[in-house]
Amino acid sequence: MTALPNSGVIPPLCTPLTPEREVDAASLERLVHHLLDAGVHGLFVTGSTGEVGYLTDSARARTLEIVAGAAAGQVPVLAGVIDTATPRVVEQARAAKAHGADVLVATAPFYVPTDPTEFGGHFRAIRSAVDLPLVGYDIPSSVHSKLPAEVVAELASDRVLDGLKDSSGDLNGLHAVLDLVRGTGFPVFSGSETLADVSLRCGASGLVPGIGNVDPHGYVRLYNAARRGEWDLAQREQDRLRRLFRLAAVGDRSRMGGYSSAIGAFKEALVALGVIDNGTTNLPMIQLNDSERAAVRGYLVEAALLPNAEE
Amino acid sequence: MTALPNSGVIPPLCTPLTPEREVDAASLERLVHHLLDAGVHGLFVTGSTGEVGYLTDSARARTLEIVAGAAAGQVPVLAGVIDTATPRVVEQARAAKAHGADVLVATAPFYVPTDPTEFGGHFRAIRSAVDLPLVGYDIPSSVHSKLPAEVVAELASDRVLDGLKDSSGDLNGLHAVLDLVRGTGFPVFSGSETLADVSLRCGASGLVPGIGNVDPHGYVRLYNAARRGEWDLAQREQDRLRRLFRLAAVGDRSRMGGYSSAIGAFKEALVALGVIDNGTTNLPMIQLNDSERAAVRGYLVEAALLPNAEE
Amino acid sequence: MTALPNSGVIPPLCTPLTPEREVDAASLERLVHHLLDAGVHGLFVTGSTGEVGYLTDSARARTLEIVAGAAAGQVPVLAGVIDTATPRVVEQARAAKAHGADVLVATAPFYVPTDPTEFGGHFRAIRSAVDLPLVGYDIPSSVHSKLPAEVVAELASDRVLDGLKDSSGDLNGLHAVLDLVRGTGFPVFSGSETLADVSLRCGASGLVPGIGNVDPHGYVRLYNAARRGEWDLAQREQDRLRRLFRLAAVGDRSRMGGYSSAIGAFKEALVALGVIDNGTTNLPMIQLNDSERAAVRGYLVEAALLPNAEE
Amino acid sequence: MTALPNSGVIPPLCTPLTPEREVDAASLERLVHHLLDAGVHGLFVTGSTGEVGYLTDSARARTLEIVAGAAAGQVPVLAGVIDTATPRVVEQARAAKAHGADVLVATAPFYVPTDPTEFGGHFRAIRSAVDLPLVGYDIPSSVHSKLPAEVVAELASDRVLDGLKDSSGDLNGLHAVLDLVRGTGFPVFSGSETLADVSLRCGASGLVPGIGNVDPHGYVRLYNAARRGEWDLAQREQDRLRRLFRLAAVGDRSRMGGYSSAIGAFKEALVALGVIDNGTTNLPMIQLNDSERAAVRGYLVEAALLPNAEE
Repeated sequence: MTALPNSGVIPPLCTPLTPEREVDAASLERLVHHLLDAGVHGLFVTGSTGEVGYLTDSARARTLEIVAGAAAGQVPVLAGVIDTATPRVVEQARAAKAHGADVLVATAPFYVPTDPTEFGGHFRAIRSAVDLPLVGYDIPSSVHSKLPAEVVAELASDRVLDGLKDSSGDLNGLHAVLDLVRGTGFPVFSGSETLADVSLRCGASGLVPGIGNVDPHGYVRLYNAARRGEWDLAQREQDRLRRLFRLAAVGDRSRMGGYSSAIGAFKEALVALGVIDNGTTNLPMIQLNDSERAAVRGYLVEAALLPNAEE
Repeated sequence: MTALPNSGVIPPLCTPLTPEREVDAASLERLVHHLLDAGVHGLFVTGSTGEVGYLTDSARARTLEIVAGAAAGQVPVLAGVIDTATPRVVEQARAAKAHGADVLVATAPFYVPTDPTEFGGHFRAIRSAVDLPLVGYDIPSSVHSKLPAEVVAELASDRVLDGLKDSSGDLNGLHAVLDLVRGTGFPVFSGSETLADVSLRCGASGLVPGIGNVDPHGYVRLYNAARRGEWDLAQREQDRLRRLFRLAAVGDRSRMGGYSSAIGAFKEALVALGVIDNGTTNLPMIQLNDSERAAVRGYLVEAALLPNAEE
Repeated sequence: MTALPNSGVIPPLCTPLTPEREVDAASLERLVHHLLDAGVHGLFVTGSTGEVGYLTDSARARTLEIVAGAAAGQVPVLAGVIDTATPRVVEQARAAKAHGADVLVATAPFYVPTDPTEFGGHFRAIRSAVDLPLVGYDIPSSVHSKLPAEVVAELASDRVLDGLKDSSGDLNGLHAVLDLVRGTGFPVFSGSETLADVSLRCGASGLVPGIGNVDPHGYVRLYNAARRGEWDLAQREQDRLRRLFRLAAVGDRSRMGGYSSAIGAFKEALVALGVIDNGTTNLPMIQLNDSERAAVRGYLVEAALLPNAEE
Repeated sequence: MTALPNSGVIPPLCTPLTPEREVDAASLERLVHHLLDAGVHGLFVTGSTGEVGYLTDSARARTLEIVAGAAAGQVPVLAGVIDTATPRVVEQARAAKAHGADVLVATAPFYVPTDPTEFGGHFRAIRSAVDLPLVGYDIPSSVHSKLPAEVVAELASDRVLDGLKDSSGDLNGLHAVLDLVRGTGFPVFSGSETLADVSLRCGASGLVPGIGNVDPHGYVRLYNAARRGEWDLAQREQDRLRRLFRLAAVGDRSRMGGYSSAIGAFKEALVALGVIDNGTTNLPMIQLNDSERAAVRGYLVEAALLPNAEE
């Protein structure tokens, strides 16, 4: 079993699609190499940024196989096993193991009305059913409940959870977990694109930034600066990346939601950088239009990721 | 194609399990006959009351096949095709058609951040992909967004949606839809156990009450009284059923969530009535204990659904 | 002490303003007579519809004095004593008694973080401090907590609360209170404009409808029909009033909030009916523009409250 | 006019009460000196920590006069002018100026349904009515709306707002404001007790920490370390203060809300430190019991603010 990295940058990979909305294997392989070349420490597939909620089971399997193949053991591959409740998550976990995952990442139940009293049983059943390291995924904006710090700490202590991905945006909650697991080596990864430096400073082990697809070198520099204690450098990198992240809001909100905008913008940026072939996103997301796509390129120029065509 | 009934009582079936948490075919067949004997007008499988979020795809398929077989065409079988976003829902829809569904029931996207601008495309894509009547399922407590009345009315007008199941508990929202579809024959079903009479009075076409598993005769009487304009009789029946519905809250909330309590209580009541064999619910729900199970029986005695054992 | 009416229509009065945003006494007196002429059973001043949150203490006192004077004991005057927590509400209650209130109406604490454990002490302290009948005001949309049915029932049983104004829009919550106070004579008033008939049918004692300022005759007819058991007549009246209530949404939501629209529309309708002189609302609400004001008149014509100027 | 400090530690003062719940002048004066002796840069009275929502107008006035008198111009006195909407806030602002405030602090409207389109008019009207520096107070947990960064920046640019107190706990929101006002000198104060160091690192100008009543020296050390760029020292101080802050959760949540616990604990700590005479909080808050009060002292011992009585 390839161990979960206990630190580092683990981007949540976009899932490139063909115009017919099939998984685009060649583009996905180029994306893996784009990230590996930047020195990332792991690859997280079928996460929220990877449009996991839109991918059929066969598309999830295909995505995972392509990434595991391209990674070729250089770094671990984490797979989101995202489904509504325990029996369905266990099936996702079995499939993910079969298709090459090194580590599983699971959320609290959603859609089904749930309760903190059920979270322990949920993760214990997943961990018992499939023998792979398991990372808890705290993402209240999607599942509409929060993993209490005490539950995480108990599951960490019992070796049910091997790590936490905190996409809550709640630094006080991050502190609460870190205070409880201090000294145990239990890794906590921040899913924030914009609070990466302060999360590391607070004690987070690593980063899972969606826009790390677009600028993995930036997050690796930020992470390495933080590890060396060069916090001013880390902060300057974060400031630059925060400005870049504004591209996520490029879509006109009168005709699309914020997620259509963000995922569309990440993919369009990867097209502009020559990494993937198409910016197509899954249904029912709304596609960016020409002016929105042009605006994405503007942010890349501003961030010095693209040359200024006008010069 | 068996048409969607445009009115009537369509209970959302519980999914009986063996102690090993397999679908219990014999119990499920008895449940179907229990409901048909009461005169219900349709059967809704793999809905929230049916623990759809906990059922694996194979368990969903098995449940649907058993019910479709037992119903034998006497009434239409509606199937919840519950998944996170369009491509996954389309797969659920194809499977449901293959396994015997007469009508599909789909929600707005969930888990994935969504937006009202996406709802039209979502339902249109489902309807295009699978040629069965499609009912929109408005359940904000699970999906954390509400189907706007204007969107429902437009999809009704375009023959994308053939009906609505309103589990929002929001009578003003129900009125808003009914005002927009008046005169078109578009049926709107209320998912409320406790506002059934007032929903019918406001113009709802029918009922999808979870506790209709336990007392289908009561809801059929309520519905028939309302159809005849005997509103006082309908209200008295509703008052009795509202008292019965208190059994849903029988579980101790310090050790379980409200849904563990409600689904556990519905199933335990069906055990007490001799309809199904086990009250087991899916993981990670917490099971009722002996005193909670006894309390369920107390409510059945009070509702005259069970004889008083002490007499 | 004039008793709280245990039933009937008790409109929450708009507070007419001069263009300089002073309380307009002549207009307010005409509004009182407009309502009394329609046969209302009480007058509720300084409620949400009366812009209580915008009125200074002196404006609240002036409003109450004008209404109490104009009512001249014909019907009781209820006064909202709306403030953030107990000591401030007690001061409001003392002032309201001094300025002519017959009954006090108080909410749960707001702005301050509060908790259901505090609700009992809050209402008990108010009732002890000022010897007037006290009505609990359940308005979760403003105070962001809900009065639990059990708390209301206990306070009713202990003679702390003499009634409840339910502006929650939650018919299940209404049922929960009514089930607990059944047979005690404790009156529960619905604050819903659009669910008045079903609320009465469920057992509510009376109505406090904001748009009752505009069409008090309609709500009195609805109420009287319900009291006689003529539910179809009550429902037809409600249907008409629900259509009229659409005027509340007349304001362009890209330039104002829903409350600016609703209060502005109520006042503009009263101007159009010749009851008050100005449609001005308090700061920081946005004022209706000419086309929005014209649209208000259109709804009045449609509801047969105004003659069609074009005929 | 004493200027708003553009940086520093400005604790939100507790309001000590006598057992009869009158403002305790002698205790309040001692609290002022306790804070001034620690080197704080301003004093914020009638804020949330000061129980402003519970204080009558006369108690607010008395509190402000006592603090202004005791401060004697050594540092500016900021006063929360907390009320539901513009006309009432203007009255609070006039009173605060009359009773000695140097700077006013106002929130968005609350209780009244409000909308971002109204925020500009609200603050402009307050600023026009009373000629004192005005600080916007972003506290979504109390007012249930958030001040958009764009609105704050526009009001800053127009010299309507002279600063912002950010009690949202949302570091991304803090970044959004700071990015928009960069280079203008517009000060942004963080209201977080536990994210003080990272807020300063992100660019906040100063701190308004509730538990700064208890350990003002700690926050002054933290602030000074941050100003010198000694971020590790600042972080160690923050870590200690975060542990101390756990005393806010000392109350048993089955019998009280979190605010009763926190305010009660702050006051009890001040009693233990000999600063104020009584831990009494306003109605309807629940009082701490003996074991909870003992637990507060335990945290003070752990933080080395009290000697260990057992040694």
